[in-house]
Order: sequence, then C-alpha cells, then structure tokens
Amino acid sequence: MYLCASINEKAEFIIFRTMANISEKAKQMPASAIRKLVPYADAAKKQGVKVYHLNLGQPDIKSPSCALDAIRNYSQENVSYSHSAGLMELRKGLVEKYYKKIGIDITVDELIVTIAGSESVNLALEIACNPGDEVIVLEPFYTNYNTFAFMNGLTLKAIPTDIRNGFQIPPIEEFEKAITDKTKAILVCNPGNPTGTQYSKESMLALGEIARKHDLFLLSDEVYREFCYTDEPHFSAMNIPGLEQNVILIDSVSKRYNLCGARIGCIVSHNKDVMTAAMKFAQARLCPPVIGQIAAIGSLDTPDEYFEAVREEYIKRRDFMIEGLNRIEGVFTPLPMGAFYTIAELPVDDTESFAKWMLEHFRINDETTMVTPAASFYKTPGKGLNHARIAYVLEVDEMKKALHILEEGLKAYPGKTI
Amino acid sequence: MYLCASINEKAEFIIFRTMANISEKAKQMPASAIRKLVPYADAAKKQGVKVYHLNLGQPDIKSPSCALDAIRNYSQENVSYSHSAGLMELRKGLVEKYYKKIGIDITVDELIVTIAGSESVNLALEIACNPGDEVIVLEPFYTNYNTFAFMNGLTLKAIPTDIRNGFQIPPIEEFEKAITDKTKAILVCNPGNPTGTQYSKESMLALGEIARKHDLFLLSDEVYREFCYTDEPHFSAMNIPGLEQNVILIDSVSKRYNLCGARIGCIVSHNKDVMTAAMKFAQARLCPPVIGQIAAIGSLDTPDEYFEAVREEYIKRRDFMIEGLNRIEGVFTPLPMGAFYTIAELPVDDTESFAKWMLEHFRINDETTMVTPAASFYKTPGKGLNHARIAYVLEVDEMKKALHILEEGLKAYPGKTI
Repeated sequence: MYLCASINEKAEFIIFRTMANISEKAKQMPASAIRKLVPYADAAKKQGVKVYHLNLGQPDIKSPSCALDAIRNYSQENVSYSHSAGLMELRKGLVEKYYKKIGIDITVDELIVTIAGSESVNLALEIACNPGDEVIVLEPFYTNYNTFAFMNGLTLKAIPTDIRNGFQIPPIEEFEKAITDKTKAILVCNPGNPTGTQYSKESMLALGEIARKHDLFLLSDEVYREFCYTDEPHFSAMNIPGLEQNVILIDSVSKRYNLCGARIGCIVSHNKDVMTAAMKFAQARLCPPVIGQIAAIGSLDTPDEYFEAVREEYIKRRDFMIEGLNRIEGVFTPLPMGAFYTIAELPVDDTESFAKWMLEHFRINDETTMVTPAASFYKTPGKGLNHARIAYVLEVDEMKKALHILEEGLKAYPGKTI
Repeated sequence: MYLCASINEKAEFIIFRTMANISEKAKQMPASAIRKLVPYADAAKKQGVKVYHLNLGQPDIKSPSCALDAIRNYSQENVSYSHSAGLMELRKGLVEKYYKKIGIDITVDELIVTIAGSESVNLALEIACNPGDEVIVLEPFYTNYNTFAFMNGLTLKAIPTDIRNGFQIPPIEEFEKAITDKTKAILVCNPGNPTGTQYSKESMLALGEIARKHDLFLLSDEVYREFCYTDEPHFSAMNIPGLEQNVILIDSVSKRYNLCGARIGCIVSHNKDVMTAAMKFAQARLCPPVIGQIAAIGSLDTPDEYFEAVREEYIKRRDFMIEGLNRIEGVFTPLPMGAFYTIAELPVDDTESFAKWMLEHFRINDETTMVTPAASFYKTPGKGLNHARIAYVLEVDEMKKALHILEEGLKAYPGKTI
C-alpha cells in the first residue's frame, strides 16, 4: 500500500490517495513477444517511413462475398445473445456442410462455437490439464501457447525440430524422453504457425500412438487446415483410429475465410466429459460474438473455387518469398507446405536486435521492412536467436520491395555474422 | 485411463480405445444455475407450450439505428484483426463521446475494449486477486461472479442485504466483519443484477472509504448504468475522490445499446499497473470481435432521446410488473431503481422446484411462465430458496399473461407455503 495526501484544487479538503497492488499472475504474465517491436514500427511511421509488414499474419485476401453479404444483410432489430454453444444454424452448418465434406464425422453436440481459435486453445488446455502439468509442444511453436500455458499454470515442454528438414516431427524416442509423470497433453499445430510445416498421416498416427501409450490428450490446432500446398490431403487428428476420447480439435472459422477479426472458432471432441466441461466454461462468458457468427453462417456457402483461388495465390506468394529469401547471402529457409509463414535463419547475431535496428535505422527511399524475431517461438534458452518468422501475406510486388530492403539491411547491419 | 478393445467394421484389425481424464477444474467448474432449467423449457416447447420467459435478461428493445446501420454498411473486403485494445476510433469515441459526457474523465490509455462485460469481470478479478484471495460481494449477486471467482481460484465472501429495504448497502460494520487478511477486493454491481438496486453517492463513498482503509480494489460493474429510474444521477466508482488507483470499472457497450450479442465491453482504470496487465491478457486473445466493434462505433452517435425512450419504456414495464407481483397473495418484491430485474419472494418451499413444476405440469391454454430460482445468486447456504429473479423485458401485454399464469400456478403448486 502506498498513501499520499494531496489537497484538491479548491483546497477545501485533503484527499488521501491509496493504491492497491495487482496480482502476481498479472505481474508475471508474459507480454506478447510478437508485439514488442510495434512501438518501433509506430515511431518509424510517425517519421513518414513506410513499413513492409513481413511480421504480421494479417492477410489482404478478400473474404468470400457470401460471408460479407451476411453481415450487410443483417435484418434483426437488435443483436441478442445466442446460445452459449453458438447459433444452432452455425453448429449444424459446420457439422454438415464443412466437417462432413472434409471427412471429419461429428455430431452437433461434439462442437461448441468459441471466440476464435484463441478461446479454443485456452479451453483445451484448461480442460485437459491441471495446474503443474506439462504439455509437450514441438519447437518452434505459436508463441501464445506459452501465454495460455502460463495462464493455466502449465509448463510447456518443447521438443526441438530441425529447420534443415523443414521442422518435421522428430523420432518418437524424443517424445518418450520428454514425457514425465506430469505430462498430460501434446499440443500440435498442423499446418504449423510459425513453421508452415504440414505433418503427414504417418506422423499424426505416430503422435497418436504416443498419446495412446501414455494416456495423453492430443490437442490438435488445425486452424490453417485450408492453407495446405501439398497434394497429400490434410490428415486431421480427429481421424486417428481409437484415439477419439483423447483428441480435442482446436479450429477457427474466421481464419479460414479471411474473417480474422470476426473471432469465430470452435472446439470439437468426441469426448463427452470434454464437451460438458467446455459448455460450462462457454456459459460463463454467455455467448460467442453474434454478428461474427452471422458472417460465419454466410461463409458456409463458400464455393470450392474460393479455396482453390486462395491456395493458388498463396503458393505464388510462398514460392516468390522462399526463393527470394534463399537467394540472399547467408539466409536459409525451408519450403513451408502450409499456413502463410516461414521461419528463416538470418546471418545476424540476434534477430531481435536486427529487427529493431531495421525499424530505427535502416531505410531505402523512406521504406523499411519488419520481421518477427523468432526466439519467443522457442522454449529452449538461446534457441532461435538467429531465426525470424516471415509471413507471405503481401502481394508479390510489395514482397519484392520488402525483400530488397531486407537484403540491403542485412548487408549494412553491424551485427551480421558473415 | 480406461482401455477397451474393439474390432473395426471390416474386422481387419483391433482398435484399442483409450480415454484421457479431464482436469479437476473442468470437473468442478459450476454449471450455469440460470440455464439449469432450460431443458425443461425446451421439453415444454416441444409439446407445443408457449413459455413466457420472465427468467431471461434478453430485451426486445431495438438497437439504435446508427448501430445497426454501421453493421449493414460494412464496406471492408475482409474482416481483419483490430489492435488488441480495440479499434482506436472506438476507444477515442468512448472516452470523448460517452464517458466525458457522463462525467467520467479518462484517457484512451485508461480504457481497453473487451469481449463484453464478461471478459471485463474476469480480467478485473484476475488482475486484482491472487488465487486464495477473498472478494467481498453483496448478496444476492450476479451468479457468474461465482463462476469467474472459481475460475481464478478465489472465494466470494457474501454480505447479506435485505429484500425489505430494497437490498441497500448494509452498515459499514458488516464489511468490517467480513474483511480478513485475505480480502483483496470488493465487487459491486450498480445498478445491480439481480436486484435492480441503485446505490446512492453516499453509499459508494462509504464503500470507497472501506476500500481505502483496507487497501482493497473496488471492482465496479456498471453495465446497467443507463438503465436507472431515479432522479438521482448514477454515481460511478470512478468518481470517488482519492480512490483512483483502486477502482477498476467493468463496463459494457453492447448491453447499453441492446446489442447484447455483439459482445463489446471495456475495462477502465486510472491504475497504470492494472492497464498494463490488462493489455497483456488482451494480447493473448489477439483482439475483441471487430464487427461488434463496428456496431459499437456506430452506437456512439446514439441520440439522448434513445435512452429517454428506453428508460420510459422500462419504467412502464417495471411499474406494471412490480404492482402485478405484489398483488399476488404471498408475493413480495421491492421497487427496483435500475437494470431490468427484480428479486421476488414467492410463497413456496423452493423456487427451483416451483419453476420446474411450472414448466413440467402447469399450463393455462397451453401457456406457462418461467422464472429464475434465485438461490444461485446467494452464497450463504439456504438463503434465497423462496426468491426468484424476474426480468421485466417483455411487453406489457405479454407480462400480463405471464403474471396471470404465475398467480394461478402459485395457487395450484403443491409446495406452497400459504
């Protein structure tokens, strides 16, 4: 407690000011590593500098018109609550029009609409694990997994993967070594953010075997499922035979249809205890955003051509970006097979210092390029220091300029290693 | 772990099924007491029975046309993420067009847009309190306070209030008695759900004194601020002199403008540590729903006449409902001064049994009335058993029929006490 007295403006009476202290959790909560450099980008913009955002997974791709039309044709006279599990039309539509089509066989009771993939990840961890439990992740991993683990009192145990083989799932022995009495779940992202790696059916079955053997939950984040660039179809954890009671699917509707801000996702499981618990947590926050749900209902009529066009566009952007990156001296990045990110090894001491330096000091014709330092995607101290996450969500012309600035920046950076 | 083997349909191989167990928190999480009776209502509806919902705070009042127009005029080609703290236009608009007007003086940095009042309550508790801490509430209280307290490992300590004096704040000695070394915050709802009680400036200053003396956070849930029916203006906790660093304001935009499903609220505090922490939690879930934020921006232009008309309508409904309830033999309810609920004492053994019985067995011309049993709004065991929460959100003609059925139901109910 801190107390200080001051006299109010009219000097009529003395006001004693007091201050209460925030919780330990609030103090220790990790700040978003991804957004740490935003003030530097803002400062550059204030100077009139154009910043190419290779750091953000904010696609410029249009949403399907059926989704946008659903928003524009909103005909209710007010916006009332929906069921806590979401509008029945959306739940049924997802089950029948989307999941059935891609070979995931579920009932309406096995799906609850969430406030985007974010709520879904948090719910999955909260439902699967007790505080103190350990969760296995593949390193590098989506940095907010760390945040949600912290919020639930969990420890992430990271199994390293290798940039040289495209961050594929390591041999099962590595999992065996990492599993302890406290391990409660494996959390995978397929295709992966930040790596863009797509796991094969064989890899997913192997993960399933490990989960089965040690009685673990397999939390499968498949929000980038429709962003796969191989000919091999995406294999969902929901289809691992015999593992029905251990799999929790984390999914996003808004991400799939470039409606990121609509914040609509879902949590799916055949495990009744999981869904009963998810429903109780869902009731506490009353309902998912309703206008976003209306857009999501609209998106159910998205024609296949939409995904084909988006896929083609991303393959074009990916190929351009990966080729461009690998042409820069000292840069290496594998070819990602999904999502819209890649992890690149840069010839620098520390990508955080480099990214900051670019924003503060490096410009070509009043333009600069921003990348995401990747150390926060790693749990092992010291790992990923020379890695950056690069999103290929901009148009090719923009990426061309961004890459040129990056290349010149790397040459000029004082902390370069080649 | 439970294991069972089964042979797949084609009898090609044996599938070993396994099942992982959910967390203790997920098991113990309280189910929504408010929604417990929903299956009974659904069953009645399936029989073709019309149910008058006096149990739900789902208003039929129209949203301001400027809010609905904002949705319908959505002109972006996709829905991208907003800043984690919300769209700057909304934050600035709330600070300058709304809070300034009602005498709450804050800066943009002191406001973060949340996923409705629900996220705001949870954040306030999470930021103010450590697991194991105690939070003082006035009984009866909004039942989800209990849920959010549970989720954060907190204990609610309820100070009883009295239906006979309209649930006013009890003498300060009662707070002194309830405060222990573990007390970290006082959580008030003004005007209150479920009581409709509006606290006077004097009461709020007295609460402020207690918070100051014991160095507690004062978490002030003011989501019903625009639903006040007294001539005395609403006095916000934000205006308690000298308590700036201890007050966290929980507010809702969607509730204020009958946009409940839009899920837009905010958390407000002059305390920098609180806002820094809130920002970290906000970043973890990326951003609040963007289309809802668009509606909220539209709502900033709502003319004063809108609130006046809504207020008049609710006063009419309230007066009708309260008079009607008190005319029924054995029923007592005070005159609520805000929100759109009242707590009524019914001449029954147990309002939960009564409410269930009404839904299962009592009809007049194939219609029945549903009320919310109020025991879950109480923490003290055995309290509120003969209380029900009644919402006056329906039109007068509907309420008239609902009240008639309630009156006849009370006469016929086998567990009546008069």
